[in-house]
Amino acid sequence: MTAKVLVLNGPNLNLLGTREPDVYGAETLAGIEANCHARAKALDLEIEFRQTNSEGQLVDWVQQARGTFDALILNAGAYTHTSVAILDALKAVQIPTIEVHLSNIHQREEFRSHSYISKVAVGMICGFGGFGYEMALESAARLLTKK
Amino acid sequence: MTAKVLVLNGPNLNLLGTREPDVYGAETLAGIEANCHARAKALDLEIEFRQTNSEGQLVDWVQQARGTFDALILNAGAYTHTSVAILDALKAVQIPTIEVHLSNIHQREEFRSHSYISKVAVGMICGFGGFGYEMALESAARLLTKK
Amino acid sequence: MTAKVLVLNGPNLNLLGTREPDVYGAETLAGIEANCHARAKALDLEIEFRQTNSEGQLVDWVQQARGTFDALILNAGAYTHTSVAILDALKAVQIPTIEVHLSNIHQREEFRSHSYISKVAVGMICGFGGFGYEMALESAARLLTKK
Amino acid sequence: MTAKVLVLNGPNLNLLGTREPDVYGAETLAGIEANCHARAKALDLEIEFRQTNSEGQLVDWVQQARGTFDALILNAGAYTHTSVAILDALKAVQIPTIEVHLSNIHQREEFRSHSYISKVAVGMICGFGGFGYEMALESAARLLTKK
Amino acid sequence: MTAKVLVLNGPNLNLLGTREPDVYGAETLAGIEANCHARAKALDLEIEFRQTNSEGQLVDWVQQARGTFDALILNAGAYTHTSVAILDALKAVQIPTIEVHLSNIHQREEFRSHSYISKVAVGMICGFGGFGYEMALESAARLLTKK
Amino acid sequence: MTAKVLVLNGPNLNLLGTREPDVYGAETLAGIEANCHARAKALDLEIEFRQTNSEGQLVDWVQQARGTFDALILNAGAYTHTSVAILDALKAVQIPTIEVHLSNIHQREEFRSHSYISKVAVGMICGFGGFGYEMALESAARLLTKK
Amino acid sequence: MTAKVLVLNGPNLNLLGTREPDVYGAETLAGIEANCHARAKALDLEIEFRQTNSEGQLVDWVQQARGTFDALILNAGAYTHTSVAILDALKAVQIPTIEVHLSNIHQREEFRSHSYISKVAVGMICGFGGFGYEMALESAARLLTKK
Amino acid sequence: MTAKVLVLNGPNLNLLGTREPDVYGAETLAGIEANCHARAKALDLEIEFRQTNSEGQLVDWVQQARGTFDALILNAGAYTHTSVAILDALKAVQIPTIEVHLSNIHQREEFRSHSYISKVAVGMICGFGGFGYEMALESAARLLTKK
Amino acid sequence: MTAKVLVLNGPNLNLLGTREPDVYGAETLAGIEANCHARAKALDLEIEFRQTNSEGQLVDWVQQARGTFDALILNAGAYTHTSVAILDALKAVQIPTIEVHLSNIHQREEFRSHSYISKVAVGMICGFGGFGYEMALESAARLLTKK
Amino acid sequence: MTAKVLVLNGPNLNLLGTREPDVYGAETLAGIEANCHARAKALDLEIEFRQTNSEGQLVDWVQQARGTFDALILNAGAYTHTSVAILDALKAVQIPTIEVHLSNIHQREEFRSHSYISKVAVGMICGFGGFGYEMALESAARLLTKK
Amino acid sequence: MTAKVLVLNGPNLNLLGTREPDVYGAETLAGIEANCHARAKALDLEIEFRQTNSEGQLVDWVQQARGTFDALILNAGAYTHTSVAILDALKAVQIPTIEVHLSNIHQREEFRSHSYISKVAVGMICGFGGFGYEMALESAARLLTKK
Amino acid sequence: MTAKVLVLNGPNLNLLGTREPDVYGAETLAGIEANCHARAKALDLEIEFRQTNSEGQLVDWVQQARGTFDALILNAGAYTHTSVAILDALKAVQIPTIEVHLSNIHQREEFRSHSYISKVAVGMICGFGGFGYEMALESAARLLTKK
Repeated sequence: MTAKVLVLNGPNLNLLGTREPDVYGAETLAGIEANCHARAKALDLEIEFRQTNSEGQLVDWVQQARGTFDALILNAGAYTHTSVAILDALKAVQIPTIEVHLSNIHQREEFRSHSYISKVAVGMICGFGGFGYEMALESAARLLTKK
Repeated sequence: MTAKVLVLNGPNLNLLGTREPDVYGAETLAGIEANCHARAKALDLEIEFRQTNSEGQLVDWVQQARGTFDALILNAGAYTHTSVAILDALKAVQIPTIEVHLSNIHQREEFRSHSYISKVAVGMICGFGGFGYEMALESAARLLTKK
Repeated sequence: MTAKVLVLNGPNLNLLGTREPDVYGAETLAGIEANCHARAKALDLEIEFRQTNSEGQLVDWVQQARGTFDALILNAGAYTHTSVAILDALKAVQIPTIEVHLSNIHQREEFRSHSYISKVAVGMICGFGGFGYEMALESAARLLTKK
Repeated sequence: MTAKVLVLNGPNLNLLGTREPDVYGAETLAGIEANCHARAKALDLEIEFRQTNSEGQLVDWVQQARGTFDALILNAGAYTHTSVAILDALKAVQIPTIEVHLSNIHQREEFRSHSYISKVAVGMICGFGGFGYEMALESAARLLTKK
Repeated sequence: MTAKVLVLNGPNLNLLGTREPDVYGAETLAGIEANCHARAKALDLEIEFRQTNSEGQLVDWVQQARGTFDALILNAGAYTHTSVAILDALKAVQIPTIEVHLSNIHQREEFRSHSYISKVAVGMICGFGGFGYEMALESAARLLTKK
Repeated sequence: MTAKVLVLNGPNLNLLGTREPDVYGAETLAGIEANCHARAKALDLEIEFRQTNSEGQLVDWVQQARGTFDALILNAGAYTHTSVAILDALKAVQIPTIEVHLSNIHQREEFRSHSYISKVAVGMICGFGGFGYEMALESAARLLTKK
Repeated sequence: MTAKVLVLNGPNLNLLGTREPDVYGAETLAGIEANCHARAKALDLEIEFRQTNSEGQLVDWVQQARGTFDALILNAGAYTHTSVAILDALKAVQIPTIEVHLSNIHQREEFRSHSYISKVAVGMICGFGGFGYEMALESAARLLTKK
Repeated sequence: MTAKVLVLNGPNLNLLGTREPDVYGAETLAGIEANCHARAKALDLEIEFRQTNSEGQLVDWVQQARGTFDALILNAGAYTHTSVAILDALKAVQIPTIEVHLSNIHQREEFRSHSYISKVAVGMICGFGGFGYEMALESAARLLTKK
Repeated sequence: MTAKVLVLNGPNLNLLGTREPDVYGAETLAGIEANCHARAKALDLEIEFRQTNSEGQLVDWVQQARGTFDALILNAGAYTHTSVAILDALKAVQIPTIEVHLSNIHQREEFRSHSYISKVAVGMICGFGGFGYEMALESAARLLTKK
Repeated sequence: MTAKVLVLNGPNLNLLGTREPDVYGAETLAGIEANCHARAKALDLEIEFRQTNSEGQLVDWVQQARGTFDALILNAGAYTHTSVAILDALKAVQIPTIEVHLSNIHQREEFRSHSYISKVAVGMICGFGGFGYEMALESAARLLTKK
Repeated sequence: MTAKVLVLNGPNLNLLGTREPDVYGAETLAGIEANCHARAKALDLEIEFRQTNSEGQLVDWVQQARGTFDALILNAGAYTHTSVAILDALKAVQIPTIEVHLSNIHQREEFRSHSYISKVAVGMICGFGGFGYEMALESAARLLTKK
Repeated sequence: MTAKVLVLNGPNLNLLGTREPDVYGAETLAGIEANCHARAKALDLEIEFRQTNSEGQLVDWVQQARGTFDALILNAGAYTHTSVAILDALKAVQIPTIEVHLSNIHQREEFRSHSYISKVAVGMICGFGGFGYEMALESAARLLTKK
């Protein structure tokens, strides 16, 4: 049966392509979503792709993923650095989660180098722009196959 | 006249019983609510019991409690450690508030041992699981009687 | 053409006048809004004035301001100290932003002296109560004129 | 068989009622002891109630409790913040221990917000004055029943 | 009677217009002084405008202001971050003081984000260049009127 | 009526004259006591002079001083740096207390420059050897006279 | 022309498969190398794969890569956290570098969450075991194509 | 021959009696000077008493004391906490120096509990108001006698 | 003449064998004492072996050792980490002291890795259980021989 | 069968006897090696004794010890404080390791009191000069016997 | 045309030769000045050599150097560690500045290892006594030649 | 007799001229070596000039310098900030050492402002590019002459 992966995007990622292009590049979130669908198809994965600016919404989505999705790919944006609530949701649902960041978070302001998500994620991919989502799908496919 | 107590629960507490049972036990939030109603009745208190994953919603509820509720029992979950906004709401409404945590927050990750809620709460009860809510109701009853 | 300024208010500012009057004074947010409208008219500015308790809502409003408003006046309340998400939204939309606080945030708890908003705001005005909003409008008018 | 609970009080608690009444209230330790006996009777617990200014004495009492008492209620006063020796004694005897403080220790000097006792206590109750001891007895009763 | 305001400038502000123009702009201190006189006249304030590179001189001037001036506008420059002596002088004379900085001090080196002046100033205005002095005069006028 | 002053000495002060003479000099505690009695007589004070190595004993003595002594002179030795219990006892009894140290504690190991006693003492005298006790008696005499 | 990638492995990676298998799994370095060769072939990349326990050797290899290799994949092992020398070598040669770690370094001892390599690497991949090398090859292929 | 003592006072001490009377009391510096002259006479000391708001002036005075004065009594006010220059001057001239503070500096803001002067002073006296100067004269007399 | 060694044991060591056996093993203090006597005999040392839970008692014993014992072996237990008083006693008596810990204190909680005793001890032995005492006797024998 | 112990010495230990004799004494490494051979013979242990200034060499030697040696005695010298690579090698080979230092590392510069080796060593012996190696052999013999 | 160099000396350097000779040696400032004149002549530089104890005076001198001097050699003494005002003056005038210290500032008290001057100086020379000034002149000559 | 000076260069200095030219300039190490030979000849010094990327090699070279060289000039590159081993070697051989850095290390990343070498070097020269080596030779010549 085709495995299902939920791809969640946090605050301001909807602005991608227009926001600080020197940091994040010219890709749009729609473009990344399209690439993800293509790659998912090749990997025989079914994906759902969402974005929100609300921390509570992300917590809700993570909770609801239980029983429906086999893996999470999560770019929590700014909430990566501040949200204990999302960390707790991830710990609670215990779905394997892959953390993605567009930029290399270790090369920016100090406060961006700490991630609550990392405490529970299988692994982290950062610095590869939108292509990082595809890498995450690859590793999700592999993770779900090995299970 | 019967005093009214608002019992507020923060993010992920809706998952209770399924989330990290080695930390939080097998109780469900519904079970705790039921015990609270029973205990409240015995103490001649009227209670209302709510949960949300949204920080802003908790701020709204605290604000709206003014003039309607005589005391708050608050388990703000992960927002305990990060929300200045809830702290400010509590300072603004000045309803006596009792802070509850299911686990002993001092025995977990370092970042969980700091509480913004404690800066304004009458007192704190932690480590007694769902029974802590009943203890909070007991002390609320006493507080409201003394007034 | 008349420039447009969006005035955003964060959590608990709706309680102004009733909340900790020794810290924030007796002014209400409605009173401040009225003074802002009067001052804006004198400065030939068009303003819109909003308040929310939700961090995600503030992020949404900042994003939506792009293309509609020429400047932001932002009193993010408690989110000033904790929200990387609002900072990122401000960096993304690149609308000149003036940070306002009613009280002198450097004379309160240590955690209130750090502001994420300051990292991107044109300037900051604090300690002048509701009059600070009018000062912000003055400097917005000047900023927009100089452009 | 009636369970036995040892209630231990650390330095300066003998001065209660006369010491900093704005912080600790007008209750005396004798009054608290009396309330504890009444509550214990209602809960079918047998209690013993002691106070000392000596850290070594507290260590001795904790050690001697093994085999005699089923639970400890401990208000270690100032030693809460400085005594690794009491922590070690509690770890050694492994009797379930409930930590009590009269005031909300998180609202006082910074050095009072750290507790060595919390590292091993079942739970903590603070800010409810002498009534906190009664709450502790309630939870001890419950703990001992569940065993 | 016309209120009197003393405007004090600390070290290196005499170099304005030539010093790091990318940080401080092309305004000169003389230009700012001229604008202040114009604005003061409009506000019916009498002002005196001084600059010194000496910490001790600033302390002397603050002390001598007592009984002569109704308010202080103070841009202490580098002494903002290091001078307890000026802080003490301000506490001693208890004349309402408005702190001004040309640049947004929160966007520069870490050591510039701490201000001893802020501990006692009515409020702070930073980031608006020389126009910040005029804003300070506005708020001084308002403060002195309300008295 | 002759005022009474209790002079308390903490751990290892009994070894004075033999212990690290390069730090503490050749004076003995008996010598200091004799000088204190002489000075007290001249000042018309009655004194009692004690030493102990036990923190709990110091707490006991401070507590017992209430109602009997008009002032305390306290050289708590090593407990100066570690004892919250003695601090609490001093706060409880509210007898004016003068802190004395033989050596200048700011010139030794870092951990000796922090004093819990200082948080509640009227004043502190350090670095003058045994003569510091006589200075303390002088100031006690003056304090008790002014009352 | 086929692009060339140098894959460098730091201290103790030669022990893979035998070293702390609960942390690093049962893969051997030879196995990873074999997978890398297969994947490189598929991506039309030429690779060279080396390991050393010596910091100086890693610096030498990085220096020598200039002019010969188009990209580096670097798992510097323990030197990740301590070697400024390798960081300087990477800055000097300016070959695009992808940082790989077998385990999620953010879930281990605190000192392992800091990486000097990250300050200059294009991106980082951690937590995916030996498969992370293949992901790095994928992204290297993409990076080199885009150039 | 009569020994000579230079009594130096730092910034804002000229305001004594008018400045923050709840912290420093109603004594004036002139009153303290008069008491010092009286006490000095009784002790057969010759004193000179000066005040300045300038750090450089204090350094000059300390330097000039060499060869003229036998001891220094120094209340450096705010410069106590910030002036390495005065510390260096004291180390250079090597005249025995007694540090005096009117208030107990350990009970005020954190930054006032650190003293550069203490690193080189014979001893420190704080918390006894103007009487502390007389105590300093007593100990100076004793120091100079012992030499 | 046979050299004499005093072996001192601090708080909770009397519980050895029953306390946290996974950390401290199954040895009892009596067993260790027996082994020490045997080893001492072989080394021609005379030993005395004591335990107390009281910090003050340890200070007393260290003081009384002067003139009677040639060396100290000290396992101060929890007081290792908190007692400046014992450190001062050791500095005062200047008897060569060997510090012993049963467990490797660097592998436990952070606060156990700091030792006041180490500042003055000849050397430290940790992690070898009760056998560490015998090692300490060996090195004491050697130290006393070399003198 | 005779157990085999590898004794490894890190940087600068080859200079022993000539290097800072006030810290390390007049023993030479050859002298210590000779004593170790004698002691090993008495304990029926076979030893090999090596020194290097290279971190990578130490990592190699630790790795190669697997399967050949039954225990390690390790004085890693300066690498004790900086080498995560040696720590990782020790964790990988899991041969029981005893950490030795000639001087008491807690009495020297602050940076010498932290040891990466301690995180994995059975125990640590410091401050006993070259005799510490013999103590380590004693405890190695005991460890290997107990196995 | 002969280049001009201003050599500025901060507080207490006038005491050189008499002040702490174990730290600073027996050279006098006049001796250093003489050597500087000789060396300057050899290098075809014109120099002016000044000293002051006043921070404000140093700021004034730095400001006045603009347009008159081609380079600064600055030994700011104690102000090196505390003066943001001098740093700002140097940034404003943008004359190449060489920082000199007589002693190696990294081998003294911790607070002397931080230099505000270093943030803007071309380079720093420390530890070579008065000869360091001559080295500074050499490098100034070279700098000015290269321009 | 001609004095001999060993000039040692650490990791990545072989890349000079190609590595980050905006930080280090266009000089090559060979060019610096040539200049050093010329300058040495003029100063009647014999020099040897070496570079290595290996920390252990630097330790070896420092050790071997004893008895052969009269002074060291050391640019340890990245090992400056991390190598306790080189510090120990320098302390052991006690040859006067002059620390050189091409760039002003106080103007780069925070971790580059700490130097282990400075703890033992005679002095430090930084920020003057390759010319700093010549300055070091000058001061070495002077040091060796004074001996």
